[in-house]
Amino acid sequence: MFFASDNAGPAHPKVIEAIAQANTDHAPAYGADALMDEVRERIRTVFGAPEAAVYLVATGTAANSLLLATLSRPWETIFCTPMAHIHEDECNAPEFFTGGAKLTLVPDEDAKLTVPALRRAIEAEETRGVHGPQRGPVSLTQATEKGTVYTLAELRAIGALAREFGLPFHMDGARFANALVTLGCAAGEMTQGVGVDAVSFGGTKNGLMGVEACVIFDPARAQEFELRRKRGAHLFSKHRYLSAQMLAYLTDDLWLDMARAANARLARLVAGLRQVPDCRIEWEPGANLVFAHLPRRLHRRAFAAGAHYYLWGDDPDRGDPDEPILARFVCDWSLPESEIDRFLDILQA
Amino acid sequence: MFFASDNAGPAHPKVIEAIAQANTDHAPAYGADALMDEVRERIRTVFGAPEAAVYLVATGTAANSLLLATLSRPWETIFCTPMAHIHEDECNAPEFFTGGAKLTLVPDEDAKLTVPALRRAIEAEETRGVHGPQRGPVSLTQATEKGTVYTLAELRAIGALAREFGLPFHMDGARFANALVTLGCAAGEMTQGVGVDAVSFGGTKNGLMGVEACVIFDPARAQEFELRRKRGAHLFSKHRYLSAQMLAYLTDDLWLDMARAANARLARLVAGLRQVPDCRIEWEPGANLVFAHLPRRLHRRAFAAGAHYYLWGDDPDRGDPDEPILARFVCDWSLPESEIDRFLDILQA
Amino acid sequence: MFFASDNAGPAHPKVIEAIAQANTDHAPAYGADALMDEVRERIRTVFGAPEAAVYLVATGTAANSLLLATLSRPWETIFCTPMAHIHEDECNAPEFFTGGAKLTLVPDEDAKLTVPALRRAIEAEETRGVHGPQRGPVSLTQATEKGTVYTLAELRAIGALAREFGLPFHMDGARFANALVTLGCAAGEMTQGVGVDAVSFGGTKNGLMGVEACVIFDPARAQEFELRRKRGAHLFSKHRYLSAQMLAYLTDDLWLDMARAANARLARLVAGLRQVPDCRIEWEPGANLVFAHLPRRLHRRAFAAGAHYYLWGDDPDRGDPDEPILARFVCDWSLPESEIDRFLDILQA
Amino acid sequence: MFFASDNAGPAHPKVIEAIAQANTDHAPAYGADALMDEVRERIRTVFGAPEAAVYLVATGTAANSLLLATLSRPWETIFCTPMAHIHEDECNAPEFFTGGAKLTLVPDEDAKLTVPALRRAIEAEETRGVHGPQRGPVSLTQATEKGTVYTLAELRAIGALAREFGLPFHMDGARFANALVTLGCAAGEMTQGVGVDAVSFGGTKNGLMGVEACVIFDPARAQEFELRRKRGAHLFSKHRYLSAQMLAYLTDDLWLDMARAANARLARLVAGLRQVPDCRIEWEPGANLVFAHLPRRLHRRAFAAGAHYYLWGDDPDRGDPDEPILARFVCDWSLPESEIDRFLDILQA
Repeated sequence: MFFASDNAGPAHPKVIEAIAQANTDHAPAYGADALMDEVRERIRTVFGAPEAAVYLVATGTAANSLLLATLSRPWETIFCTPMAHIHEDECNAPEFFTGGAKLTLVPDEDAKLTVPALRRAIEAEETRGVHGPQRGPVSLTQATEKGTVYTLAELRAIGALAREFGLPFHMDGARFANALVTLGCAAGEMTQGVGVDAVSFGGTKNGLMGVEACVIFDPARAQEFELRRKRGAHLFSKHRYLSAQMLAYLTDDLWLDMARAANARLARLVAGLRQVPDCRIEWEPGANLVFAHLPRRLHRRAFAAGAHYYLWGDDPDRGDPDEPILARFVCDWSLPESEIDRFLDILQA
Repeated sequence: MFFASDNAGPAHPKVIEAIAQANTDHAPAYGADALMDEVRERIRTVFGAPEAAVYLVATGTAANSLLLATLSRPWETIFCTPMAHIHEDECNAPEFFTGGAKLTLVPDEDAKLTVPALRRAIEAEETRGVHGPQRGPVSLTQATEKGTVYTLAELRAIGALAREFGLPFHMDGARFANALVTLGCAAGEMTQGVGVDAVSFGGTKNGLMGVEACVIFDPARAQEFELRRKRGAHLFSKHRYLSAQMLAYLTDDLWLDMARAANARLARLVAGLRQVPDCRIEWEPGANLVFAHLPRRLHRRAFAAGAHYYLWGDDPDRGDPDEPILARFVCDWSLPESEIDRFLDILQA
Repeated sequence: MFFASDNAGPAHPKVIEAIAQANTDHAPAYGADALMDEVRERIRTVFGAPEAAVYLVATGTAANSLLLATLSRPWETIFCTPMAHIHEDECNAPEFFTGGAKLTLVPDEDAKLTVPALRRAIEAEETRGVHGPQRGPVSLTQATEKGTVYTLAELRAIGALAREFGLPFHMDGARFANALVTLGCAAGEMTQGVGVDAVSFGGTKNGLMGVEACVIFDPARAQEFELRRKRGAHLFSKHRYLSAQMLAYLTDDLWLDMARAANARLARLVAGLRQVPDCRIEWEPGANLVFAHLPRRLHRRAFAAGAHYYLWGDDPDRGDPDEPILARFVCDWSLPESEIDRFLDILQA
Repeated sequence: MFFASDNAGPAHPKVIEAIAQANTDHAPAYGADALMDEVRERIRTVFGAPEAAVYLVATGTAANSLLLATLSRPWETIFCTPMAHIHEDECNAPEFFTGGAKLTLVPDEDAKLTVPALRRAIEAEETRGVHGPQRGPVSLTQATEKGTVYTLAELRAIGALAREFGLPFHMDGARFANALVTLGCAAGEMTQGVGVDAVSFGGTKNGLMGVEACVIFDPARAQEFELRRKRGAHLFSKHRYLSAQMLAYLTDDLWLDMARAANARLARLVAGLRQVPDCRIEWEPGANLVFAHLPRRLHRRAFAAGAHYYLWGDDPDRGDPDEPILARFVCDWSLPESEIDRFLDILQA
C-alpha cells in the first residue's frame, strides 16, 4: 500500500535488462555512445522535432534547473505557481543554476497557471526599469503537482501569452507521460504545438531508475545547455547506462504503457475513494496522483495497517478523530491493484 | 584495445546483479533506503571512521565540487596542481559550486603537490589583506592525473602543511582504490591518518555504472553537504540504485579486486612498452594509467589496427613519422590481457 | 515641487564642506583613514553598541545585499514583505549577493510584517527536509516603503519571533532616521533592543551624497562582511570621502535635524492634502512619504504646473478625469515649504 | 613623502568645486541627471565613438568586474597576466560577477601580455570539448601594474590575436590617462583602434574622489551592462555626484593635465633614483609608478624619515642592511616636487 511517491517504485524489468545488455565491452563516454544516437533520434521522432537538441540527465531537478538556466538570465524572474516543484521542492536549485534569478509566484487554479493571473504577474514586472527583475521564462508543470492536467487549449493560451511578451516557455514534464495519455494527443502537440521552448521529458517517476530527457526545440541553445550540464556536474561519463534506460523506455511504447497503468491505478483508487464516506476529493485528478480529505480516524487506521502516503497538515495521532486532513496519494505503474483494493477495504471497513 | 579511459569500461556484472536485486517493490526515496544505511556503515568501517558523514553522488565532478564547496568560502582560493581534474576537466564546476572561489595552480612534480611549492603558494596569499583571495582548501588527486601515486609520507607532509595554516585538506579519489592497492595500506591511513578532511571515494572509474561516495570526517559539516547536494540537483530520488551499486562494490572486496586487476593490467602494458624500441615512459606509473612517448609511425599503426587512446599533442597523421607524441594509456579492470598483448604485438611488429 | 524621491534631493552643504575639508594631502586608503576611526566610534555610541562592526558603502542596495548575504546561506529563504525594497527594487541583487537565496513574500499590513503572517510563513518552510529552502533571515524596512513606521512593540514582537526560530533579524534602514525621530527613541532601542542583528543606517536619502553605514552587532561576523564588501567591489579606495560625509552627518545631530525637517515637511503636505476635496490618504504616514488617491484631473493640473512625483497606476492623461490614481509623495529635508504650499494651492485651485 | 598609492591622494579642487556646484535643488536620480548626458557625449567624443555605451561606477573593481561579466559567460576563462589587478587585488570579484568564470594566468614580460604566450594559452584551451573551460575575454591593464606601458603596436597585436579567436578584448584602464600621455595618442587609438571592446576609463587614481567610466563600444551590450550594474548594487541614486566629478575631469583637459603631472613627478623621482648608489630600477617605467631595488639600510632611513611606500618582500628592519628589497613608488598629480626631492636627499645622504 505504497502511495507515497512515484519516486519510490521500482524500475521496469525491461529497463534493468537494457542496462545489463548495455554492459558489454568499452563504449565511448560522456554521451558519445551509440545508444544515445538512437535515443536522440527516437525522441526527435516522438516530438516530431527533427532539429531538437536532446540531452539526458539523472534527476528532475537537474533537468528543470539546467533548462531554466539556459532559457533565462540572472536578473530575470521566472513565472510559476506557488506549488511548482521548482519553487517548493528543489532547495533553491533554480536560483543556483540561473545565477540568482527570481521566481514570481502566480496565483493558480488547481495548480494551473491561468491566463489572467499570469498576464497580471507579467505586466507587474518591468514597470520600474532596471530596478525590478526583468521578465523571464514562463514555467508550468504538466501534469501538475496537484495531479491536474492542462488541456491543450489551456496550454495554447499560456503559450500565446508567453509569446506575446517574448518570454520563453518551459514545461516541467516530470509526469509528462501521465498527462499525455490523459490528453490522448501527441508529444509534439503538447509541447512545440502550444509554444513550449524546452521540456523535461521525465522517466524517473515513470519506471526508470533515474533519467530525464531535456528537449530543447531551438538547436541554437544546445551548446549552452551542454556547457551548463557539464559545469553542473551532470554529464555522466558512463552515459550509456542513461541511454540504455531511455531507449528501453521508448521501445514498444513502454513509457506510454507504464503511464497508462499508473493512471488506471489512480482511477481505480479514486473510484474507490469516492465511495468512502467522509472522503472528499480535492482537485479533479487527471494523472496518477490525487488529493483527498479524510478524517483523522481513517488515516490512523490506514497507517496502522501499513499504508504509506503523505499528509498535508497536522499529526493524525492528535486531535479530533473526525476532523479531516488532506492527503496525497500517488500511484505508479508497478502498484498492484490488489494493494489499492486492500487499502480501500481498510478505509471502508 | 581500449586504453582511452576507465570511464569507458563496463560495470562489473555483480553491480548489475545488485541493481536487479534492488529492483523490488517500493523503497523510501532520497537516500532513506535501507541499502544506504548498510553502505554508510560499511564505508565508515572501511575508513575506520565511525562518525564520518557519507553521501553518494553519481559523478566525480559532483563529488569534488560539492566537497570543495562545503570546505571553502567564495572568497578563498583552492590550492591544486595545474593538471588537477578540478582545474582542467570540470568546466568551472568548482568555481560554480563554491560560488566563485579561485584555484591557485601550484607547480607540481609528476602531478604531485610538493611541500616547498605548496608552502610558497600558500604564503603568497593573504599578504594583501582583503584585496587578494583568502587561503582555502588544499586539494590533491590520489592516484594523480598522470598515474603517479603519493606515498603516505608525502601525503602526511601535505596534510601537516595544511594543518599548519589551518586549511582544509581535500582528496580527489576518483582512482582511490588504484592508489590504495599500490600503497597496500588501509583507507583510513591514506585519508584521515594523513589529515584529509574529505575525500571522494570513487567507484565510477573502477567498475561501477556511476557512483562516488563523499566521505567527510567531521560530521558537523554533514548538514551543509546535504543541502548543497540537493541544491546542486545531485540528490537521487530512486537512490537505492546508487546504494546497491556501492554495496556490491564493498562486498567481498570487489572494489579492491577490480583495482588490483586494473593495476596489474597496467603493469603488464608498461612492461611491454618498455620493450618497444623508441618508446619512452614518462612519469613513474603507480596505478592504472601511464604516459608514454611513441613515434608517430607507431601511433599510426596502432590506430589503424583499432587501438583507442588519447594523444597529448599533434595530429599523428601529419609530420615526421619518427617524431614522438605523448600518449596516455588507461587500463580498467575489464580489459582483457589478450588485448594488451595484441596491442604490444602491433607496436613491436 | 519635487516629491518624486528623497534620492533626488541635494546633499546638505555641511556634507560638501566636510568633503572639501577631507580633501587635503594623502590619507590611508580602503577604510584605514582616521576619519573612519571616528565614524566607527560615533556610530557605536549612537547605537550604544561598543563592540559593533561598522562599515560604509555607497548604495542602499549594497548595504542590504551585503548584510543579508552575511546573515544567510544560499539554500535559505529570506522573509520579507511583497513591497520590500530588497524584493521590488534591487534587480535580484539579494539573490546575487547571497549566492541564490530565495525571498519569501509574507502578506503585510500597511507594508509591515505582522507576527501571525510571519509565523505562518516561517512554519511553512522546513517542512520538507532538504527539499525546500531552509529558514533564513527576517528582513523588514523601517520606515516602510509605504511610509508607515513600526512601533517598538511591533519590532519587539518580530524580533522575538525571529529569535524563537533562531533566525537572524535584518533591518533595512534606508529611512532609519525618519523612523527614529517619529518614534522618539534611541537608535539602540530600535535595533539591538528589539533583537535586530544587522541594520543599514541610511544616509543617502537623508542628505548625504551616497553613504550607508552597515552596523553588525555581533563582531564575529565582521571579517566575513569585509570580504564580501571587497568581493562585491564596494570597498572604496579613497574611502575618506565616505567617512567625511558620515562624520558630518553625525556631527551636531545633523542627521536627526534633517530627518525632522523631512518629516515636518511631509506632515505639512499631509495636512494640506487632507483639505483637498476628493483626496484620500492611503496608509497612515509616519515618516517622510505618503500615498494619496487623487482624481486624474488633479494629477493633470499638478504635472502641468511642474510637479514631480510617481503614480501607482495608469496614464493620467487618458480616461475619466474624476477617477482617482494612487500617487506617492516624498519630502526630503531640503524641500522648501513654499513649494509644498504652492503644490497644495494648485490642487485646491 | 607619500609614494604608497595614487589611491591615497586627494581629489583635484576643481572636482570638489564641481560637486558643490552640482549640489543644488533636486535632480533626476539613477543616471538620468543632465550632467550625465553631457558626460556621455564628452566621453564619446574623447574616444571618437559616437555610439559607445558609457556608464559610471565608483570603484575600479566594479568597472572591471561588470565589464568582464558583460563580455563573458560563466564557463569561460579570462586570459590575463599573473599580476593583473583582476587576479591579485579584487578578492575574487571577477569570479563573483561573472558567475564563476576562471582566470588563466598567461606568463608576462614586464607585466605585459605577449602574443606568443597568449597564443599558447588560448590554444591550450578548448582542446577537451566541454570538459575544460571555454575561451573567454583577453584582459590587459594599460598602464600595467608594474608601471610599464603597452605600445600601440603591442596592443594592436594582442587585439588581432583576440579577434583571430573571436574573443572579446578588455582593457583595465585604472591608469588609462597615464598611459595615454606617455603614448601621446588619442584615446580611441589606444582602444577601439587596436580592437578593444570595453575599457574602464579610470578617474579614481588620477584625481577624482571615486569615479570610473565604463566604455563599451558595441551598444548592443549596453542593456546587459545596465542590469548587471544595478544587480551588483553599483547604480547610484544620487548619480549626479559621479557625473559632476567626471565632467570636471573632462573639462579643459584636467584629466590629461593631472596625468602629465603624475608622470612628470615619477620621471623626476626615477631620474633621482638612478643617481642613488645601490639603487636598481626594475622594469622600464612608463607611467606614474616605478619599482626599484634598494638596500635595507636605505629603506630604514626613508621610513624613519616618514616616507610611505610598499615593499615587495621582507621586513626591512631585520637582516643584512646591504641586501636589497624591491619597493614600489607611485606618484599622483598632487605630490609636491619638494617631497620627491626631500626623499631623494634622504636616500643620497
